[in-house]
Amino acid sequence: MKAIKGGEFLIRKTNPEDIFTPEEWTEEQNMIAQMCDDFIQKEVEPNLDAIDKMEEGLMQSILDKAGELGMLGLSVPESLGGMGVDFKTSLLATEALGKGHSFSVAFGAHTGIGTLPILYYGTEEQKAKYIPKLASGEWKASYCLTEPGSGSDANSGKTKAVLSEDGKNYIINGQKMWITNGGFADVFTVFAKIDEDEKLTAFIVDAHSEGISLNPEEKKMGIKGSSTRQVFFNNVKVPVENMLSERQNGFKIALNILNIGRIKLAAGVLGGAKEAVTLSVNYANEREQFGRPISKYGAIRSKIAEQVIRCYITESATYRAGQNIDDAIEQLIADGMEKGKATLKGIEEFAAECALLKVLGSEALDYVVDEGVQIHGGMGYSAESNIERAYRDSRINRIFEGTNEINRMLTVDMILKRAMKGELDLMGPAMKVAGELMSIPETPEIPEGPLANEHLYLENFKKTILMVAGSAVQKLMTTLAKEQEVLMAIADMSMWTYASESALLRVQKKIDKEGADACEEEIAIVKTYFVDSADRINKSAKDALNAFAEGDELRMMLMGLKRFTKTEPFNTKEARQKIALKAIEANKYCF
Amino acid sequence: MKAIKGGEFLIRKTNPEDIFTPEEWTEEQNMIAQMCDDFIQKEVEPNLDAIDKMEEGLMQSILDKAGELGMLGLSVPESLGGMGVDFKTSLLATEALGKGHSFSVAFGAHTGIGTLPILYYGTEEQKAKYIPKLASGEWKASYCLTEPGSGSDANSGKTKAVLSEDGKNYIINGQKMWITNGGFADVFTVFAKIDEDEKLTAFIVDAHSEGISLNPEEKKMGIKGSSTRQVFFNNVKVPVENMLSERQNGFKIALNILNIGRIKLAAGVLGGAKEAVTLSVNYANEREQFGRPISKYGAIRSKIAEQVIRCYITESATYRAGQNIDDAIEQLIADGMEKGKATLKGIEEFAAECALLKVLGSEALDYVVDEGVQIHGGMGYSAESNIERAYRDSRINRIFEGTNEINRMLTVDMILKRAMKGELDLMGPAMKVAGELMSIPETPEIPEGPLANEHLYLENFKKTILMVAGSAVQKLMTTLAKEQEVLMAIADMSMWTYASESALLRVQKKIDKEGADACEEEIAIVKTYFVDSADRINKSAKDALNAFAEGDELRMMLMGLKRFTKTEPFNTKEARQKIALKAIEANKYCF
Repeated sequence: MKAIKGGEFLIRKTNPEDIFTPEEWTEEQNMIAQMCDDFIQKEVEPNLDAIDKMEEGLMQSILDKAGELGMLGLSVPESLGGMGVDFKTSLLATEALGKGHSFSVAFGAHTGIGTLPILYYGTEEQKAKYIPKLASGEWKASYCLTEPGSGSDANSGKTKAVLSEDGKNYIINGQKMWITNGGFADVFTVFAKIDEDEKLTAFIVDAHSEGISLNPEEKKMGIKGSSTRQVFFNNVKVPVENMLSERQNGFKIALNILNIGRIKLAAGVLGGAKEAVTLSVNYANEREQFGRPISKYGAIRSKIAEQVIRCYITESATYRAGQNIDDAIEQLIADGMEKGKATLKGIEEFAAECALLKVLGSEALDYVVDEGVQIHGGMGYSAESNIERAYRDSRINRIFEGTNEINRMLTVDMILKRAMKGELDLMGPAMKVAGELMSIPETPEIPEGPLANEHLYLENFKKTILMVAGSAVQKLMTTLAKEQEVLMAIADMSMWTYASESALLRVQKKIDKEGADACEEEIAIVKTYFVDSADRINKSAKDALNAFAEGDELRMMLMGLKRFTKTEPFNTKEARQKIALKAIEANKYCF
Repeated sequence: MKAIKGGEFLIRKTNPEDIFTPEEWTEEQNMIAQMCDDFIQKEVEPNLDAIDKMEEGLMQSILDKAGELGMLGLSVPESLGGMGVDFKTSLLATEALGKGHSFSVAFGAHTGIGTLPILYYGTEEQKAKYIPKLASGEWKASYCLTEPGSGSDANSGKTKAVLSEDGKNYIINGQKMWITNGGFADVFTVFAKIDEDEKLTAFIVDAHSEGISLNPEEKKMGIKGSSTRQVFFNNVKVPVENMLSERQNGFKIALNILNIGRIKLAAGVLGGAKEAVTLSVNYANEREQFGRPISKYGAIRSKIAEQVIRCYITESATYRAGQNIDDAIEQLIADGMEKGKATLKGIEEFAAECALLKVLGSEALDYVVDEGVQIHGGMGYSAESNIERAYRDSRINRIFEGTNEINRMLTVDMILKRAMKGELDLMGPAMKVAGELMSIPETPEIPEGPLANEHLYLENFKKTILMVAGSAVQKLMTTLAKEQEVLMAIADMSMWTYASESALLRVQKKIDKEGADACEEEIAIVKTYFVDSADRINKSAKDALNAFAEGDELRMMLMGLKRFTKTEPFNTKEARQKIALKAIEANKYCF
């Protein structure tokens, strides 16, 4: 069977046996996750307050310990001193480390945007010089892209690089902002424009070079233990051999590295979210009001259930995409591509999925910590509770690695571009749906089993997106790119559909293997998420259609929409009670 | 025309001319608001950082200045040294002070829960002794209700009062928690149980009494400048004449004072929310990306518009209720009741509305500050931006003065109790709606004007609530009180309906007076809020019905629901663009 392509989920049916599910982690993968989990428990959790107070040298020393255990080199090939695990295993490790608050951010910045540009774009010499020391933690790394005037519009940076008269160095001048690990990094990847270039070029810069200076630590809402600095470059000499990849290839590097960062962020926030569910359940079981633990009350249970649902959905979607990426990488290597290039290319293939996972995950975490605070009541507002820290720390995830607004628009933009290039036949299926609007609907083939309805709903969700996106493309043509409200609606629908499908296939796979009785709560999760998503999708589609269509055409599409988002009556209250009860009895997140 | 009763909005049509709208503030009322606004600008805003650092004596000195200007005695009768403004004017002042962050909390605690128990329940002697000094600010006040084991379940407190052998004092022992202004208060209202009483009794306690000790300041997520302490009572002697009201009347006092606190909280958060909109618009106009201010982009505009909508809706509902309360108070006074009692009784009449306004307002503020942070991007996460402070400060409002969950359940509980007592004929209209489900719907009388549809939708929203609540009462009978998920859904629908109606009547009143052309953006606000609310109500009703009904009955109600929440196609994108543009051009909240 042909492997699925990026964005193809919108037009292609996937079978449960074709996706990876978290039920299938191997013993070895679980051991890696356990190692990361132990590390957080032993080295990070006892130090959370000290880390947030930025105790001198503490973060570096914890990173050093992580380096000794090989955790900084998980994604680095063994030939360069790393463990060389596959992509989705690196996601699993990221999840396990995701409850480490500021440490997770420092870890992610070092191993991700700090190390990967060199690993994937460096020459053999550059890799040999830097990667082993980054993998061991001897050197710490930072990524210098954002500037005061250049955030979402990353390519507009003003930092300049000019070749020295002797041709041996580039001289860099400029100012970078929000630089994670800035305070202690040894190696910077710096993006600058050479002369009057239109596009950025990337350079590997020794952070201790003359001419580099730092502002004091930024005061932030959360992740207070993560070093965040402004970095100033004043005639900083960078040897010409430190240019990374080609001249003007920096913007491309930045984008590709961000693709990886986005799905990794989804894995990281998933770890944080599961931990926040556990904190919430612990508190709800312990806190008594009106003579019983508050976990006995429906208002609390429905919150816990929805917390669980958001985690489960995010998990299903993230690792499904992770496996797709691994498969794509393997295929490219089999076709003769070098591993670094293949990795980049494999991830780029699923860039749309990475962008929507970033949004899905960061909004799941924000939901979970917000309700976590609420479940904690007054204690949730106290800085003595871990949920309070989680609430503040969470909020950055919707902003960095591309704001969620930018990522929503990117999702749609990338899918439409693939369609334009003929890589994805979106318009064919869209026309088919449009045709269906004008005919008597065929009686659909009814799947069997406890999730039969949901398989039908899923097809309808996809039809909704195709109807809206297809019509938007035809009506708005070239102005669609400027119709951000419509793009955001399409992005939301795509995200919910991808998430719905991933959870549905995961649970179907488990049912196929273990039978429905073993999956009672998981079935409840999928059913609840589907009926909620149907209403969300209905609303987004309606708003989008009303924004660009009118008259008979609008009415016809609204009628189609009604049909596509119709669901059978389902008792979400009962389902949520069931889901919550399992977590309450286990006294932790346990799905 | 007979004045509307509390909860009656669910079954009664109100005409635009019968509500108060913020367009009708008198010159005098606007001057009071301006005084408060000037005070915040002059005394509070330059000191926000210092206040949050709890600079020694600063908060007290600002409260002293407020006292000098008469602001601490706004609601206090002139005979006791105050200004004696009516209730809704006190709400207006609270709104103006609502952007004062921690100061607003200290102000609210002193003038509200600190002063009002004595003002409304004190004897003449108690009032004469305490109120003038509280109104001038010479003494500061605090309210000691919550205990470590007793939050939502306020009456379960363990603090004890025992009469001394000589009969002259009560001896109080116990521990109170989250006591606002605890660090500098001179007067505490303390709730304790005498002997083995079932219910609380309230006492006025000199905060400097022997045996009172304080824990250090609590570290909190936000409102860091607001003093929050634990207070310990160790054999504290309180003269018997300091008992407030009757023995065991304390729980009643606590509830009545909280009624006032809730609507005042709505007014306060409204002020904070408007300020956060202004901060957001300022930033969006100033920040450029991709060559233009980000306020030019649809993704940002739709956020700004929704921020505006939430403020406008909250404002319309809060002052409408404020006027209803003033009218009720006046009527009671005209009927011969003493003013203090009449005030309490008037507010108690609208306790359900106060509870839902607390939820509406606090969730509006949280929405506004959250999107405010998002609009600010990275700067929104920086502690140097005011929106970051607003985000942290906001979060307490969904927790204190009764969590939003407790307030949701209270709303429904209070309405149902009134129905049970025969004070509100809910079941008659509910039966009528039930009957309508089984007959061919009458063609409704179509109102005229630009908001014709919305008048119809409003009737349908009410029918939805009556259908769901009526059926829930019949099906669940005595177990309904335990079905929190159903109660929350009914509360949500009631809140959105009250808010929708308030905004609709407000704009209709303006149209009737000034014509539709003068109200273009307001019409857009109402129309957008209605179509969004229709979908929200549909979802809540569906979830509730599915939780307790089944079979044919369920299907019939779901069909009715579809009819009741049907809306005509409406372009919310265009409407939001229009709303946002007005704020963007004014560079502030301007509705």
